[in-house]
Amino acid sequence: MTAFAIIGHIARTDGSFSINDLPGGGGRMDVLCRCVNASFFLSHDLRRDVDCYLLLCGEPSGPKTVRFSGNGVRSLSPDERSAGSLIKKALDIPCGSEFREAAPGIMVRKGGLERLMTEHTFAVLDEDGKDIRTEAPLPDAFLLSDHQNFTEPEEGLLRDCARYSVGPRCLHADHTITVLHNELDRRVSSWK
Amino acid sequence: MTAFAIIGHIARTDGSFSINDLPGGGGRMDVLCRCVNASFFLSHDLRRDVDCYLLLCGEPSGPKTVRFSGNGVRSLSPDERSAGSLIKKALDIPCGSEFREAAPGIMVRKGGLERLMTEHTFAVLDEDGKDIRTEAPLPDAFLLSDHQNFTEPEEGLLRDCARYSVGPRCLHADHTITVLHNELDRRVSSWK
Repeated sequence: MTAFAIIGHIARTDGSFSINDLPGGGGRMDVLCRCVNASFFLSHDLRRDVDCYLLLCGEPSGPKTVRFSGNGVRSLSPDERSAGSLIKKALDIPCGSEFREAAPGIMVRKGGLERLMTEHTFAVLDEDGKDIRTEAPLPDAFLLSDHQNFTEPEEGLLRDCARYSVGPRCLHADHTITVLHNELDRRVSSWK
Repeated sequence: MTAFAIIGHIARTDGSFSINDLPGGGGRMDVLCRCVNASFFLSHDLRRDVDCYLLLCGEPSGPKTVRFSGNGVRSLSPDERSAGSLIKKALDIPCGSEFREAAPGIMVRKGGLERLMTEHTFAVLDEDGKDIRTEAPLPDAFLLSDHQNFTEPEEGLLRDCARYSVGPRCLHADHTITVLHNELDRRVSSWK
């Protein structure tokens, strides 16, 4: 099982945004939708052994955590609007501090990074980290930021985390997940 | 300079589709929009040394070729709707057999794979190809298919092309581009 968590620093935390305006009204929700795509999609298949946590920190009621579980999710298509619709549905229902199911395989709760870090030992994917190709073994839970850098309070929480990089260029979060999956796929197969 | 070409087997070839329905009315135009994203985007930067050709083969007037050039493109954002809007704009203008500019860095012409193959020597990205990590040097032009396999006539045209694979799992076209970029990035840097 592999887990990804992505912090959406300005991602809307209620369902009032339009799926026709994921970047604007959604608070760069498009970034998170692409991370959902990268976490799960294979050609004509889904990675069932992946969980993807979206840590939404924007207005009006953040932070909230939306979890997509590969072994339970249904009706997810690769386009941004599909993930966006499911996130919107999750944010439309009232929730408390424990996960509540919004749709098959999709849960929502109040709370963000600090809570999630008590449940997983995350490595941070960061351009200054160690090369994923040369480090062995790799961890099974990875944290990424959206289009913004980690904030100072977040960096405080992440102080002791291992840091890995997927390559020499600074990539979008979803591209980073794709490259990491490729490295993990190679390690569990006969490919180098 | 690196070139990617992606065949959109049912991608609409006029601008009558809605950018709210890229998968349906656009004929899986969402796949091609994600390939544009993967071809060009770095974190807070664009890959200026990349051309991305979309080979649109759907109704009503296919095939058409839309070229995005990294060194000229403006107003491209990473969300699917952004690339979709630019493709729609290109398909909305009349065109002949020579490239015509539809927007900065975006050209359109009639014709498809057969014509493009007289202009580039493509390698095919395909799950049965040789591992990109172990082959050296890699070519500079790569052809991919969308969610459908290459047709028999296409396979006939591609009979003599080199074939490469990015890993042990069968990936979406845009994910394949992302992994390939990572390998190329490593080769031009001090990373292994």
